[in-house]
Amino acid sequence: MPTTEQEVNMKRLAMMIRGISVAMLTSRGGDGSLHSRPMVSPGVEFDGTLWFFTQVGSEKVAEIALNPQVNVSYVSAAEHRYVSLSGRASLVDDPEKKKEIWSPEHRPWFPQGVDDPELKLLRIDVERAEYWDMLSAAMAQLLGP
Amino acid sequence: MPTTEQEVNMKRLAMMIRGISVAMLTSRGGDGSLHSRPMVSPGVEFDGTLWFFTQVGSEKVAEIALNPQVNVSYVSAAEHRYVSLSGRASLVDDPEKKKEIWSPEHRPWFPQGVDDPELKLLRIDVERAEYWDMLSAAMAQLLGP
Repeated sequence: MPTTEQEVNMKRLAMMIRGISVAMLTSRGGDGSLHSRPMVSPGVEFDGTLWFFTQVGSEKVAEIALNPQVNVSYVSAAEHRYVSLSGRASLVDDPEKKKEIWSPEHRPWFPQGVDDPELKLLRIDVERAEYWDMLSAAMAQLLGP
Repeated sequence: MPTTEQEVNMKRLAMMIRGISVAMLTSRGGDGSLHSRPMVSPGVEFDGTLWFFTQVGSEKVAEIALNPQVNVSYVSAAEHRYVSLSGRASLVDDPEKKKEIWSPEHRPWFPQGVDDPELKLLRIDVERAEYWDMLSAAMAQLLGP
């Protein structure tokens, strides 16, 4: 089966972020300032799209409606691994997907559970990805123009 | 000696990021996309301003010239601590400050050392700060409007 460079890089990227349970999502406010916040990362294998849970009334949902371009960073200080994913976010209401990626780790943040009608999904289509290995002072761009 | 709420919050913030040796800096490209990269955090006590080293020709310097508004996040997964700092970045050439904050941790990234004329400082004046404690599912805004 032939694999393209894109597929190989996607797998490397999936490996880089695997096991990092919380990511930082940065979005842009109406005044141009950039805000980040931790997001529980569902334990699904990365395939070019990231999924997170969000409350429909949260600040990030308002910011993303104005500016869909976001950054998601994954940090594993213990392994000196740093990953930057740039992409476009959209708010999605997909009950099946919600059930698929729900895990008990989400409960402290969304105590109403997966059936809460205020609970939506943030879908982020990644357009560019880079990673840094701070031990070897190496960096590489894995996806993007 | 009276201390204002602002001073108390500044100290709490300094405590939250103390010991986290690498931060993620997010800036905005000319096409509107958001990029982040790891930055070695000098071990100086936070007082409202963050300092980082940068090469003058780096992508982030170009991005900041276009859009000075940046985000810096500090993650300590082991302690479930996540901090978001929003502010304005500027490029500074201050040989004394450079010597003050230089440490051997910077050497792998800037092998020419602290006297390299291409080495500049990124000064970030923090305008808003929030932190999350993921263990207790708590968050607080410590600085900002």
